Amino acid sequence: MTIVTLLSDFGTADSYVAEMKAVLLSRKADLTVVDITHEISPGDVRAGQYLLSRSWKYFPRSTIHVAVIDPGVGTERRAIAAESEGHRFLAPDNGLLSFLPAEARFVSILVPPDASPTFHGRDVFAPAAATLASGDPIDALGSSVSRPVRAPLPVPHRDGTTIIGEVIYVDRFGTLISNIVPAAVEAGVRIRVGDVDVGPLQRTFADAARGALVAFTGSGGTVEISVRDGSAARLLGVGVGAEVRA
Amino acid sequence: MTIVTLLSDFGTADSYVAEMKAVLLSRKADLTVVDITHEISPGDVRAGQYLLSRSWKYFPRSTIHVAVIDPGVGTERRAIAAESEGHRFLAPDNGLLSFLPAEARFVSILVPPDASPTFHGRDVFAPAAATLASGDPIDALGSSVSRPVRAPLPVPHRDGTTIIGEVIYVDRFGTLISNIVPAAVEAGVRIRVGDVDVGPLQRTFADAARGALVAFTGSGGTVEISVRDGSAARLLGVGVGAEVRA
Amino acid sequence: MTIVTLLSDFGTADSYVAEMKAVLLSRKADLTVVDITHEISPGDVRAGQYLLSRSWKYFPRSTIHVAVIDPGVGTERRAIAAESEGHRFLAPDNGLLSFLPAEARFVSILVPPDASPTFHGRDVFAPAAATLASGDPIDALGSSVSRPVRAPLPVPHRDGTTIIGEVIYVDRFGTLISNIVPAAVEAGVRIRVGDVDVGPLQRTFADAARGALVAFTGSGGTVEISVRDGSAARLLGVGVGAEVRA
Repeated sequence: MTIVTLLSDFGTADSYVAEMKAVLLSRKADLTVVDITHEISPGDVRAGQYLLSRSWKYFPRSTIHVAVIDPGVGTERRAIAAESEGHRFLAPDNGLLSFLPAEARFVSILVPPDASPTFHGRDVFAPAAATLASGDPIDALGSSVSRPVRAPLPVPHRDGTTIIGEVIYVDRFGTLISNIVPAAVEAGVRIRVGDVDVGPLQRTFADAARGALVAFTGSGGTVEISVRDGSAARLLGVGVGAEVRA
Repeated sequence: MTIVTLLSDFGTADSYVAEMKAVLLSRKADLTVVDITHEISPGDVRAGQYLLSRSWKYFPRSTIHVAVIDPGVGTERRAIAAESEGHRFLAPDNGLLSFLPAEARFVSILVPPDASPTFHGRDVFAPAAATLASGDPIDALGSSVSRPVRAPLPVPHRDGTTIIGEVIYVDRFGTLISNIVPAAVEAGVRIRVGDVDVGPLQRTFADAARGALVAFTGSGGTVEISVRDGSAARLLGVGVGAEVRA
Repeated sequence: MTIVTLLSDFGTADSYVAEMKAVLLSRKADLTVVDITHEISPGDVRAGQYLLSRSWKYFPRSTIHVAVIDPGVGTERRAIAAESEGHRFLAPDNGLLSFLPAEARFVSILVPPDASPTFHGRDVFAPAAATLASGDPIDALGSSVSRPVRAPLPVPHRDGTTIIGEVIYVDRFGTLISNIVPAAVEAGVRIRVGDVDVGPLQRTFADAARGALVAFTGSGGTVEISVRDGSAARLLGVGVGAEVRA
């Protein structure tokens, strides 16, 4: 069975996600639909990009990922499909897919004339996903695009021997997820969040005392700062964009 | 595979929804279960009716829709099944299914004597849905009902040339969803919410400036009032029941 | 199709649950995954134990239950598998499975050396669940354990003819769920929460007037205290641990 993943800022209190699933299953009954999340803050393309960029590789090849964080729905912004490493992606062309390599193939999706101008998730992306799930290639959805909108997540830079990165996501536990790759951090270097010294990289947050700050390699592959049994975001009073040094 | 949709006010923090799914899948293994939402405010039959009334048609024929917003569970209120346009519906008889046409067929579901008086979702509706999914007609669930409880969503009325409707739902984005059908609105007529002039109907909220109010045809087929990149409900300080004029 | 249930404190705003499902479905495509809940308060092993203990029996035999409330992830705490009444369970060895009978079989799961020390849900428990779903017995996961950590939910005691129990869970509706079994309550005995007399056991909360407190047999099989169309937790200002007498 083909897997279709859904990621959006629609929330789960309304019927929007269910209407997308209804369209998908009406056109292709034997699908496994997996919600990544629908609780992205309205319009937060960057948070959506982070979550999709870290999770898509765990799904099997040929999975179709539908990501709809779409503050520009109904404007001239394009709807795009992409293919990379055997996975397929459908999203508004607003930078949400910037984690894909430049050499990925992109297609501009033809929008049906009767699509609601405010709900392309149901009327454009879900039908397109069903088309791909039925075996069509992404070229069946429209014509090739050479320059999709790029809005990549920030990458760290260096100042002498110091790596200067930033918090790119804060999770439910208040863990600060940075963009610094641990392999780039020299042994013994202390991690700082703003003015606060968090100490050297530990193996896991369980190595810290309760209530203490700790930096470690997170499950997404970058340096994270956490408070054991607490919230680093609350303790430090910082969020996305806060400077992290290593 | 038969689709069973679930809509309730159970929330997703407890195990109630999972217990319904467990009963469903224990009795009929090859089902596709789709959550519409479980985040209806406790007892808000009207919000549940709105969401089910706009979403059910996107599902394929023969889908079974289970809707449990049931403040009267354990009282003499009946549990009913209905059939309309090839879809099946299961709900307490409290008006939740009032969007179905009067000529739909209704049946009163026999309640098993050992059903928990406080959880018919698990002990009455889930088994009934499994029965229907196994191929039985709704008449297998009980005997015909001639007068189900009707509590239809409010419909607009006219005052001269003015259409007077109201907000019937507010979504996650703070969009005010009215009961006015755009086809009834004459070209150029300005939309008002209470005392506030929102201007004439636009094609989409993307036609407005950021932070500006805009009225447009929503994805549910009625006039909606929105703030681009903001919340109309918060900006106007209104909610369900607020008057909308066109 | 084998059912895999998931219960955690991961929330649904991040991609953690989706990454677990991705690993599951990558290794065993034909699974039915059912979320019990992911909204347990971070680290609340007791709440997780309550919800799993009341819901697992509704699933069919051979269901695999994965429960990850794991404040000790990355420490020396073991990961365990258990089998009881044909169901399989996977969880950290922190008492989460204490509702299982002492004679259940327990196995200590071998942790892959490349598992993230902070995300055993994805890197240990999901692969183990896929192994079981593929037909392997729990012994394929590791070696037998004689003394899993036990942290059973509190049980009532007696003081003369009075049963003294406590609130073990509060649900979305503010219902206080106690650990007192109604069969142990003598006819006519009045239920008390702290100093408040709730009256004798009723058949259901619908037997009470709106806004009135009522005690009844809940859908989980124990005495619950509720306010019709309201919240008993808010009205009484109590929560988990509050004394309940019968």
